[in-house]
Amino acid sequence: MTNVAVVGVGLTKFGELWEQSLRDIAVKAALAALADAKVNNDIVQSLYVGNMSAGRFIGQEHLGALIGDSLGIPNVPAVRCEAACASGSVALRSAYLDIKSGNSDAALVVGVEKMTDLQTDEVVMTLAAAGDQEWEADIGLTFAGLYALMARAHMHKFGTTREQLALVSVNNHSNGKNNPHAQFNMEVSLEDVLNSSLVADPLRLLDCSPITDGAAAVLLVSESLARRFEQPIWILASEQANDAVALHDRKSIVEMLSAKMAAKKAYEKSGLGPNKIDVTEVHDCFSINEIISLEALGFAELGRGGKFVESGAITLTGELPTNTTGGLKANGHPVGATGVRQVCDITKQLRGDSINQINGAKIGINLNVGGSGATAVVNILSNELVV
Amino acid sequence: MTNVAVVGVGLTKFGELWEQSLRDIAVKAALAALADAKVNNDIVQSLYVGNMSAGRFIGQEHLGALIGDSLGIPNVPAVRCEAACASGSVALRSAYLDIKSGNSDAALVVGVEKMTDLQTDEVVMTLAAAGDQEWEADIGLTFAGLYALMARAHMHKFGTTREQLALVSVNNHSNGKNNPHAQFNMEVSLEDVLNSSLVADPLRLLDCSPITDGAAAVLLVSESLARRFEQPIWILASEQANDAVALHDRKSIVEMLSAKMAAKKAYEKSGLGPNKIDVTEVHDCFSINEIISLEALGFAELGRGGKFVESGAITLTGELPTNTTGGLKANGHPVGATGVRQVCDITKQLRGDSINQINGAKIGINLNVGGSGATAVVNILSNELVV
Repeated sequence: MTNVAVVGVGLTKFGELWEQSLRDIAVKAALAALADAKVNNDIVQSLYVGNMSAGRFIGQEHLGALIGDSLGIPNVPAVRCEAACASGSVALRSAYLDIKSGNSDAALVVGVEKMTDLQTDEVVMTLAAAGDQEWEADIGLTFAGLYALMARAHMHKFGTTREQLALVSVNNHSNGKNNPHAQFNMEVSLEDVLNSSLVADPLRLLDCSPITDGAAAVLLVSESLARRFEQPIWILASEQANDAVALHDRKSIVEMLSAKMAAKKAYEKSGLGPNKIDVTEVHDCFSINEIISLEALGFAELGRGGKFVESGAITLTGELPTNTTGGLKANGHPVGATGVRQVCDITKQLRGDSINQINGAKIGINLNVGGSGATAVVNILSNELVV
Repeated sequence: MTNVAVVGVGLTKFGELWEQSLRDIAVKAALAALADAKVNNDIVQSLYVGNMSAGRFIGQEHLGALIGDSLGIPNVPAVRCEAACASGSVALRSAYLDIKSGNSDAALVVGVEKMTDLQTDEVVMTLAAAGDQEWEADIGLTFAGLYALMARAHMHKFGTTREQLALVSVNNHSNGKNNPHAQFNMEVSLEDVLNSSLVADPLRLLDCSPITDGAAAVLLVSESLARRFEQPIWILASEQANDAVALHDRKSIVEMLSAKMAAKKAYEKSGLGPNKIDVTEVHDCFSINEIISLEALGFAELGRGGKFVESGAITLTGELPTNTTGGLKANGHPVGATGVRQVCDITKQLRGDSINQINGAKIGINLNVGGSGATAVVNILSNELVV
């Protein structure tokens, strides 16, 4: 099977984009990815769109066809893929498998979500549809509530502290302060986080990623086509694992077994281990999830994620620079776009043209999570095909 | 790349299934497909769910994980695929490409839609999200309206008659009368159709497929695995083409260019032509679309589809038995399930265990359409790998 490379990445500004429609931002990100790859839209043989809930957010389904049409490639086969907040990643992985299958040599992936057209309470209920509607959402369990349960259990079992959670937000906001695409460019202090409004105990406002509009796109190509591009970034592994949707059906709520399984498969596929990773993007929808994710990816032992954060390891000058552009916390979290945005940012780090560039970064990993961990996708990327 | 075969099919009863939830019927169809293949759920390595709009119909997204979980395979990678009324087909095609890529040897496809929990006007608006929300739905153009425009143009340009449209419904209801899975088992006469209530001129109630709950599932396997099964049915081609979402952006509204392109690719891939097809399933969401589809698949020349129907060619004893189990008209049209249901029914015809069995049927084709033709998927199946 052919290898697959990322040869173009594109992002819109993330934020409250009231003056732009979903199709506006999707096309903007797609065109940016094509421009980044220095190609026209006629290269695209397949289109995959990651989107969680445009049907509810803006009353539009059938986004594959809509975005292909708006992009001037109406006849290209297009599919919208959904797995809640991992929708972008399952779209990307579908494109990756499409190229591996020999069906296409070039596949465009667009992750997009337009969330701010609804009132906040309606957004919260729409997002709750990523959990188990009948057994979680209907009894009032929102996503802040679900992750708060995980946080409290992690604190109870492992002694993870409120301050360690807050340091996740401090790091990610610090990394996002010079990111022109990020929703928020302000830094936050430990005290800011600890004194912000309580959302779902122990999680406070500054532990939570925001509600965001935004789009991200990547152009994937086969190995034979990749040779024509200046600086292809290779996908050494793209692996997914799932788990029960409802938190109460999981074997454990202090770790994320789906992410652990996806990471294990990705390390096996690539022949690499956590010690080979130079830069990482993890799913900090809530601060606790960055800690749980760092453990799932094998960077810290189970229960030691908080201490790992506290040690400064995740900062730009630490041993494992994490969420170097601001994470979901500062970038914002347009749910269908996030997994694709992570791959855009890892790609730029590996090419050497990122903000907050990590010198000599060669191998990167990202983890994108759907729901409270029912879906997890892990990609390992490298600037060389043979590592 | 490996070849891919269908080795199990499963259907629920289609209809108003108020006493069953989406997950109930999805699991029921999936278990039926596994039982049909005489295997357990542990064979499944990938899960693809076709669903258009559960977010709006029942307030639940993340259906891949939910259905995997409910089926007892919570860790299997699962993706929900959407392309409006072709959602089932893009899920099936994604599973096909997944196996071709070498990622899986066995992939389960579940198409499902639970539509009747909403009021009819809300269903109509939810379905309108398959069209261009900003340019069609917002000005009141429903799907009956869109297909009525196509019907009127076809009648005006080619002399297609009101009676020819009605004969589509007469044929499909006649075929569905002994189908235990169909929503409707009643036959309708030409007069019944012509005298039914006007919905969108020239389309009447009995020209329209109904609002339906239902699920369909198929188990796909690689060639090496298929050899272990008694009667694999081979997918010789699974091809998709798209077109502009809004009807007014198409080059023509009297033909469906997406379907024509998908069919052309499928014939090329399989090395077969329309003259080799023994049995067909087409997308009769409205009677006009069966006529347009028969033309797109090359069974009748452009503009001659009405006469082809009138000739009796599509009946069970005609030259091209079409929608032999009742089509969307009698089966009902749970939108995310329909494309998968078509492949279930073609598979049974090619195995020789269908209702209304066409003796000696060896090669079948199906066409599933999303929206008013923005997405079209064509599969060619055969009971032999080398034809």
